[in-house]
Amino acid sequence: MTDAVHVDEQLLGRYVAELGAIGETPDGMYRFMYDAAWQRARDTLLRWIADAGLEPRVDAVGNVFGRLPGSGDGGVVLTGSHVDTVPSGGRYDGALGVVGGLAALAALRAHGTPATTLEVVALCEEESSRFPANFFGTRAMLGLVGPDEPDRLRDRDGTTMAEAMRGAGLDPAAVGAAERHDLRAFLELHIEQGRVLADEGTDIGLVEVIPGIAWETVTVRGRQDHAGATPMDLRADALQAAAQMARELTSVVEREGRPAVATTGRWTVEPGQPSVVPGLVRFSLDLRHPDLAVRDRLLDEVHRTCADVARRHGVEVDVVRDKDEEPAVMDAGLLDVLRGSAEACGASWRRMPSGAGHDSQLMATRVPTAMLFVPSVEGRSHTPAEYTTPEDCVRGASVLATALHRLAW
Amino acid sequence: MTDAVHVDEQLLGRYVAELGAIGETPDGMYRFMYDAAWQRARDTLLRWIADAGLEPRVDAVGNVFGRLPGSGDGGVVLTGSHVDTVPSGGRYDGALGVVGGLAALAALRAHGTPATTLEVVALCEEESSRFPANFFGTRAMLGLVGPDEPDRLRDRDGTTMAEAMRGAGLDPAAVGAAERHDLRAFLELHIEQGRVLADEGTDIGLVEVIPGIAWETVTVRGRQDHAGATPMDLRADALQAAAQMARELTSVVEREGRPAVATTGRWTVEPGQPSVVPGLVRFSLDLRHPDLAVRDRLLDEVHRTCADVARRHGVEVDVVRDKDEEPAVMDAGLLDVLRGSAEACGASWRRMPSGAGHDSQLMATRVPTAMLFVPSVEGRSHTPAEYTTPEDCVRGASVLATALHRLAW
Repeated sequence: MTDAVHVDEQLLGRYVAELGAIGETPDGMYRFMYDAAWQRARDTLLRWIADAGLEPRVDAVGNVFGRLPGSGDGGVVLTGSHVDTVPSGGRYDGALGVVGGLAALAALRAHGTPATTLEVVALCEEESSRFPANFFGTRAMLGLVGPDEPDRLRDRDGTTMAEAMRGAGLDPAAVGAAERHDLRAFLELHIEQGRVLADEGTDIGLVEVIPGIAWETVTVRGRQDHAGATPMDLRADALQAAAQMARELTSVVEREGRPAVATTGRWTVEPGQPSVVPGLVRFSLDLRHPDLAVRDRLLDEVHRTCADVARRHGVEVDVVRDKDEEPAVMDAGLLDVLRGSAEACGASWRRMPSGAGHDSQLMATRVPTAMLFVPSVEGRSHTPAEYTTPEDCVRGASVLATALHRLAW
Repeated sequence: MTDAVHVDEQLLGRYVAELGAIGETPDGMYRFMYDAAWQRARDTLLRWIADAGLEPRVDAVGNVFGRLPGSGDGGVVLTGSHVDTVPSGGRYDGALGVVGGLAALAALRAHGTPATTLEVVALCEEESSRFPANFFGTRAMLGLVGPDEPDRLRDRDGTTMAEAMRGAGLDPAAVGAAERHDLRAFLELHIEQGRVLADEGTDIGLVEVIPGIAWETVTVRGRQDHAGATPMDLRADALQAAAQMARELTSVVEREGRPAVATTGRWTVEPGQPSVVPGLVRFSLDLRHPDLAVRDRLLDEVHRTCADVARRHGVEVDVVRDKDEEPAVMDAGLLDVLRGSAEACGASWRRMPSGAGHDSQLMATRVPTAMLFVPSVEGRSHTPAEYTTPEDCVRGASVLATALHRLAW
């Protein structure tokens, strides 16, 4: 076994700070795929990759790679994460895995030429913040992007993904060229985005499973009426019914207890005027549990609850499943390598499920994959308050570097 | 007393249909002050006014007038209503009072020259659908528009009212020129927008009082967190708290019973992503009761309820009063004239409060004012389903014409 590989704390700190300043606003991070901030992040990463002595490359969809070529032809060990953010997001989600991987490869250059080629990647559109195209960068690498997606998918301003790609210097017709068949393993460093590690004082989380997320859109149709002239007892107010659904479905999930979670995060209320009784409400439901059977039982209960509320309120409800992911199990062999690397680095560790979804869950369907978590202060994430200490950042990147060393040399 | 004056049912029907086609979409009427549809409506009304032998005029803010000059110099008896709509609105709200008034003046031309000058008006921006400038047209006539309003107020796209005025051929610096000091009386024909008349089978509603509307914005601040990694028991979800507030404040008003109404019609949920626990929610509250003391007691109770929910949910709540209107009492003498005119026309009538707010409530603070309602089928309003039968439209316009005849000859 090799000893620990230590990444440069100052270099990593600079990466985190400078990447975190790109797309940052008083209201948090806004770095959406192919927009101006995203392009600046891409260009900055390419410069850092070259400065670190790695080979820079952008693929057909905008994934950014830095390559440390190996002496053998045994494929590629890949590490990285995503560079896009949620709206009003933080500096660490995704970004830490990118710059941590880059700092790891920069540190490994001092160890000479690896047997196996190493690459770091900054994946695009993990969050689907701009386009309804979750894991777009990973899907492109795995050949899972439909040929019509760039022309079909639009952002909220009506811009097609194809137009946005051209604006970022990419050819939407070339999406297929991003497909890779040479990946041997994928390791993703990420912040926990929850408070388990921070509360326990544990350094590293070894992710065993990523829960399958169900996303649904609940549409409630009532009757649009005048707010002054329609007595309360004659209304079919879509908002009041939807509010009651949101409360009752939350109770269903709260009764189940941890780790079940449900979130109603996106709301559209029409016509959206103070003086008009809402006729239509759409809200999103995000429901997660690592056990697929439990998740689906909860969804059934939520659907019965919504139907029952609709009946009581005299409105119609309609639920559409937008996303339905299987839980993803991480590779046991890679987890062993990460565990040994944590111990070599003197880091405490625990096995745990992920709360959030990650590129790794899709990568795991084709390539042996594992994730490691570092603590999130107060468990905050998807908010500007997201924070991981410099010590935890460099510890996670060093565990990653050590694992890559064990895998590639 | 004069006999009944009957307006031309075919002419009125054509006005309703043609004006109703301007700004109509598959999703209802969208005719917002100074937009393209509004300008087409203005131009169409000016043509109809001229065709009816009346003197057309547009004032400094875009109110459209048709004048039937009288022989005396005793000021002007004005009738009319507004020409702007709520989003996804109907064909009758406001519009009927404009074209009904126009048809009434067209019918009265056959009666020779009145002693008192008559005018019909199409007022702009009653609904504040485009700019936060409720009753803008009426306020301009009464000298109640602040000199900074055109430059200060913006629509949702960020366009200032001044820019929009220039786009409609108006000079924002000339707003003061719209002020009138010659108004002797104002009569407004309007659809009921409720179901009292339709349910009873009564032809005409004589409005005694317009309730004072309170508009408030409720802002709920929780903690924005990751939807997957934040256990339910650690959340401070602004949406869940706001939904509970909306439900409980509705219960407060439902317990009070008719005619108290409360509506939560406009919602903003931030950041508005399925995978993010909402950190901030803003919703509008519209609360009405004809008795100001009852209304204010209900508001107090609503505020206590929201504060209590906020405490239970661990979030902060903040309530701002956006609008606070006094109830407006209609002129008893004018109501007597309307009652006599209804009887002359063979129409059944009842006295009633208005459910909705109207230009008349502001006009009544300076000028003797009265309103008459015609039935709304199923009480529907502020929706494309809004409908009043041609018989009810012409009956209302004839009662109006008869009243104008009694006032001006």
